[in-house]
Formats: sequence, C-alpha cells, structure tokens
Amino acid sequence: MLVLANATLATMADETGGYALTKAAALVIEGDRILWAGPESDLPHPDAPRRDLGGRLVTPGLVDCHTHIVFGGDRAQEFEMRLEGAGYEEIARAGGGILSTVRATRDWDEARLLEAALRRVDHLLAEGVTTIEVKSGYGLDVETELKMLRVARRIGEERKIHVVTTWLAAHALPPKYKDDRAGYIRDVVIKGMDRAHAEGLIDAVDGFCEGIAFSVAEMAQVFDHAASLGLPVKLHAEQLSDLGGAAMAAQRSAISTDHLEYLGADGIAAMAQSGTVAVLLPGAFYTLRETQYPPVQGLRDAGVPIALATDANPGTSPLTSILLTMNMGATLFRLTPAECLTGVTRHAARALGLADRGAIAPGQRADLAIWDIAHPAELTYRIGFNPLHARVFGGEFV
Amino acid sequence: MLVLANATLATMADETGGYALTKAAALVIEGDRILWAGPESDLPHPDAPRRDLGGRLVTPGLVDCHTHIVFGGDRAQEFEMRLEGAGYEEIARAGGGILSTVRATRDWDEARLLEAALRRVDHLLAEGVTTIEVKSGYGLDVETELKMLRVARRIGEERKIHVVTTWLAAHALPPKYKDDRAGYIRDVVIKGMDRAHAEGLIDAVDGFCEGIAFSVAEMAQVFDHAASLGLPVKLHAEQLSDLGGAAMAAQRSAISTDHLEYLGADGIAAMAQSGTVAVLLPGAFYTLRETQYPPVQGLRDAGVPIALATDANPGTSPLTSILLTMNMGATLFRLTPAECLTGVTRHAARALGLADRGAIAPGQRADLAIWDIAHPAELTYRIGFNPLHARVFGGEFV
Ligand SMILES: [Zn+2]
Ligand SMILES: [Zn+2]
Repeated sequence: MLVLANATLATMADETGGYALTKAAALVIEGDRILWAGPESDLPHPDAPRRDLGGRLVTPGLVDCHTHIVFGGDRAQEFEMRLEGAGYEEIARAGGGILSTVRATRDWDEARLLEAALRRVDHLLAEGVTTIEVKSGYGLDVETELKMLRVARRIGEERKIHVVTTWLAAHALPPKYKDDRAGYIRDVVIKGMDRAHAEGLIDAVDGFCEGIAFSVAEMAQVFDHAASLGLPVKLHAEQLSDLGGAAMAAQRSAISTDHLEYLGADGIAAMAQSGTVAVLLPGAFYTLRETQYPPVQGLRDAGVPIALATDANPGTSPLTSILLTMNMGATLFRLTPAECLTGVTRHAARALGLADRGAIAPGQRADLAIWDIAHPAELTYRIGFNPLHARVFGGEFV
Repeated sequence: MLVLANATLATMADETGGYALTKAAALVIEGDRILWAGPESDLPHPDAPRRDLGGRLVTPGLVDCHTHIVFGGDRAQEFEMRLEGAGYEEIARAGGGILSTVRATRDWDEARLLEAALRRVDHLLAEGVTTIEVKSGYGLDVETELKMLRVARRIGEERKIHVVTTWLAAHALPPKYKDDRAGYIRDVVIKGMDRAHAEGLIDAVDGFCEGIAFSVAEMAQVFDHAASLGLPVKLHAEQLSDLGGAAMAAQRSAISTDHLEYLGADGIAAMAQSGTVAVLLPGAFYTLRETQYPPVQGLRDAGVPIALATDANPGTSPLTSILLTMNMGATLFRLTPAECLTGVTRHAARALGLADRGAIAPGQRADLAIWDIAHPAELTYRIGFNPLHARVFGGEFV
C-alpha cells in the first residue's frame, strides 16, 4: 500500500464533466489499483507509507486513443517537396505518398520498426501517457499487417505503457488490388483479421470510410465479420465528406468514430443512441489546413462523449504531443480545457472500450500523471511546454 | 582547440538560402569561435582533440528573436473562461486581459519574475536555442519596465544563453494615462528609455503600432529619440490592420518589423530598400485564429529576409517551442523547411542586428545545436518532437 499525500486531484470522475478538483487531497494505491481518493483529512490509512507530492496536480494517466505510430520510413522530404511547390504527381513519381510508407513498412523488419516507434512513443511517455492505441494499416498485405501489430504489442513489453491494438487493413487499397476491391476485402482484410485474431493481435477493427478509400457497404461487410469474432469496431468517418459511415458504425455499436469534420445530424443522433465516442483529431485538421470544423456543439447537445487523440502518423499528422493535441482541441475546435482533459482521460479510455481507467476513483488502475502546475487548465493553455513531474503506471513510479 | 568530426553540417552560410548541407564534415572550434568548417577530408588540424558526432546533424544554435518571456502571473484561467463562453467584459471584470499581466508584473519582485521566466526559457534551451530576445512592456511604468529588463539580463547570467533586450514601454497605454497619451510617451516611454539606456539595459527599442495601441506618428517620435541615443529600432506592425508602421520603421533603418499580416506593397518595398527583416509570428496567428496571411510571396519576391519567432507571451502566444514555431511557419504560412531553419538562425540573428552568429562559418560564434536526425527538414516536419542531442554555447557543450 502506498499513500500519495499533499496533492491536488483532478479526478475526472464526475459523470457530468469537469475536473472534479480536490485540493489538500490524498490517494491510496494497493497493488496496481486505486483503493481510495479524497480529502487528506479523511484519509483512511494514516499509517501506510506516504509520499508527499508537494501540492502538485495529479490527473489520470493520459490515453492516446488513435495513433498510427508504427511505420517504416519518413515523409520529411515529401513534406519539403510539397512546400517547395511540387504537385501530387511529382511527389508520387518521386515515390512519395502513403505508398512510400507502405513500401518502407513492408521492407523494415520488426526490430527496426520497433526502434523507430519507440522514439516516438517516448515523447508521449514524457507527457504522461499511460495507454496508447496503435493501428495496423501500412502493410496492406496480411504478413505486414500482422508484423505491425506484433511490433505494437512489443511496445507494451519494452515500455511501461498499455498498448491497445487495432486491425486497420482497410486503410487504403494497394495497387495490386486496384481492379479487385472485393478480393482485397476478402483475402487481406477479412482473412488477415482471422489470422491476427487467432494470434491474439487484435483488440478492435477499424477502417477508413471515404471516397478515396472504402465505402460504407464495404466497411459494413468488414464490421459484420468483426462481430462474428466478437471484436469491437471503430471507424475513420466523415473526415472529407459525409458518407454516413458514422451512422453505420453506430448501428453496429462502434466504440468510436474518428475525425468527423463532416458529421451531420443523423450521424450525431445515431452515435448518441449507441454511446459511441467521437474522437476528434486536431493534428490532422491542422496539418491538412482544413476549414470544415467538426460539429462540437451538436455533439455536446446530443451528449456524445468527445475524445481527442494525436492521430500520430507520417502523412497527415506527424504529431507526438498529447499536450499540444489538447491545445489544438481548444484553440482550433473551441473545446474547453476541461473537455480537452476529459478527452484524453475518461472519454479516451471509453473510446477504447476500457472501463478500468481514465479517472481517479476506487477500483481504477493506478495510472497517473503528476504535474508541476497549480491548475489543470494550464495543460491546455500552454503551447510547447511539458510540466510532467512523474508518471505512475499500475501503481509504480516510472 | 576542439574538432567536431563525423558530422552533417547545415551551415546556413549560403547567402542565397538553403541549408548548405555538407556530409562527412567537420568543424574546428577555437575558444568561443568557429575556426574552420568543411569536408572532413580537408580538415586542417588533424591532430587536435576530436569529438565524433556519429554522423549527427549540426546547425547553428537557434535564435528566438521576438519574445515577451518575462512577465508575472498566468492567463490560463482567462483562456479557460473565454472557451467557456465568457465575453471580453466579463473577463475584464474578473481582472483578465493584458492589465492582469501588468498588475502581476508590477507586483512580483525580480527573483520571482526570474524564476518563472527561467522555467519557460529552459524549454527553449532544450530545443537548441542559444540566443533569445526579451522585451519589456508589461510594466507601463518606468520602475517596472526597468525591473523587467534587469530580469532579462539575469537570464543570461543564470543560463548559458545570450540575451538581447528590447525597450517596449510603448506596448499599451495604461489606464492612468488614458487621457494623456503625450504624457505617457514623454514621461514613461522616453524618460524611461533614457534611464534604462544609462543602466545599459537596452539593446533596441520597439513599439506596438496599431489602432488599439500607438499611432505611426507616436512611434516615429519614440524612434527619433532612440536614434538620438544610437539605439536600433524595430516595430510590431500591420498585425491587425495596415497603418504604414512598417514603412515608417524601415525609413528609420529598423532592424526588423514583426507580425506583418496586413503588410502591403509599399511596406514591402520600404523594407527591401532598408534591409529590414520581416519577423513572422505564427504562434500569435494560430492562437488568435487569424485568417489574414502575411505576404510571404511578396516578401520573397522583394528579397526581404524572413525570420520566425515564438512571440512567447501570456496572452496571444503562450508558446515556448521554437521547433513548433518552425512547423507552424511551414504549415500555416507555407514557408519551406529551409526558409524556416534560415528564419530561426541566419535571419533571426540579422533581425537582432547580430552579424556574428546564425551560420556555421569561420569567425562566427561557436553556438551550435546537434540533432539526432539525418536531414534538417525533419526539424520542421515533425510536431511535438525534440531530437536535440546537445547544445554548444560559445564553444562549450552545455
Ligand atoms: Zn487515423
Ligand atoms: Zn510581440
């Protein structure tokens, strides 16, 4: 048993939102769980070993619920070419675009992919992240998709972080299948899902539902197969247009739908009904210089939980700061700082189907972030600043 | 003498822009200066003590040429109130806005101001910054303006960084002088300048030239006094409207004009003629959600040097990451990565009137940043990432 005393707690445990801030507070950890949290004057275990936090702010460990952080190669020079005036064609001829990431991801072995991913993950750890979601989707063949998820699992062995894996073979159609969409869905997305599931590599199934990727009908077919395996689903939906993907996913009890810039009233209503979390990705909005804002007020009014994530990926969001993601959520999407913090704790956990984290409350995992600041709004307000004092993972200071 | 070997150099020494990248390179440091830089095969001092950089990238130490990093108080809760729907009036009644920063800055003593500023400066140091500009401007009375610049000088004693100070008493009109603009200019801006100059606290004189602050005529009066003291001038100009401040400043040989979203053709032409640097501040543009872009192509076409800076301040740019500033320069303003790196090295030094830094070349100060990356475009491409390996200040690894 360990008592953390002299803390300010933002427990995020209030169902109605807000920090649920408690000053002069303490919490009691037993094993990897929180046993008790509340005002220090009510501390039930006065004789347990105690660590004084000097009045620092304690939040739940942060959860990054949407990343593509495992990939090969680098897109910095493509970024540079584009800014120097190169068009899409020229970049494609120079080997750029998502297919360059696919080529490198196929080419690199697990060790190299892992090493590169860990450099990125370490930035998230340094900002208090204790749970991260990692998607496949740069293999577009069965072996490479499996390799990506094996690397994702290894991240959780190499670092003190919990990794949740997502099967995203339905990310893009590879050139080999350009005239055989049904064949790709059947041979790679669905057969690969069976193999990855048999290997224990999948926690959820995702897809990119967009004019340039997969249709609502194609994703429904993939999701129905996921359901037959008992796997939860989620969807990249309504990022560039409103195809109705979010509503289709909500009807299949999706745990989240993600991006959502073009989400309409029907999609919001369907998500509210199914309890699906809206995962907003301001890093992609910023990088793509989008002007269409996700319907934040509509989501609020309907009571749809809003989460925020980095979308860490080499093409449209080369972002590995969850704190900057929070600032972008406020600055670009006008979320309040309390909504931003809820979006990377309580609601992000829910977007991953995890009920045992995201709040400081008895029975929750003792995953915590301890910050050198007085008020939680500072986490969202400051840009390019990291006040993390310590990270606690499963009750252990790491 | 010290040889840094097995390096990739982005010397930024090419007048025409670009990285001037040299692989398999070395550089020779003597005291606090660079003695030689070039291909390792040509190294003129083969027997000097040598440090192997393992192929890492070396750039000039970064220069943040526009900050308001010394201030009292905190505006996080005002940021939160605004996002929760509070209007200007309500925030003012709650004690918010720039006057809340003025109150706290007047109230805090030098030690407290220094401690708070160092926490922010340390984030810049961690990203390879070796020279920083610091403005006064939150005192709006003589004693507090002097106190701010004394604190700025102390930053350079407490940390291995060079501090350049700027007198910005003409930042806002304090309530006490609301019916006596001329009195404020005379008694605080000009008399204070004399005192601060006598104390050796001023390297340059600045002002905020805008409808909500000071007019072109008022700033001309201030600049003419600066000229009588031999002090260079610079100006916050054309941020919210085109008043012609940049042209007035250029006619007085300003070293820089800053912000410039509304800069027109006349201003560009005047700056090109005077060699004035255009300092762009994407952090303020981002935070204020501006939609008017500075005339980047016009500045390029006219050959006006472009610099980038954080504008670190509590109200409109609570940004303490020079790397994120570079990404914003590219993502928001469409600068190329080479322009962004030039903008925080060579051109930023020029914006401060410093000819002895900002490039890796014989005779330049040995202020360097050493990075764990292969290509300099990565510094601009990645978001929320810090690949700094080491910082060298005046020839010393710090
Ligand atoms: Zn994604
Ligand atoms: Zn400024």
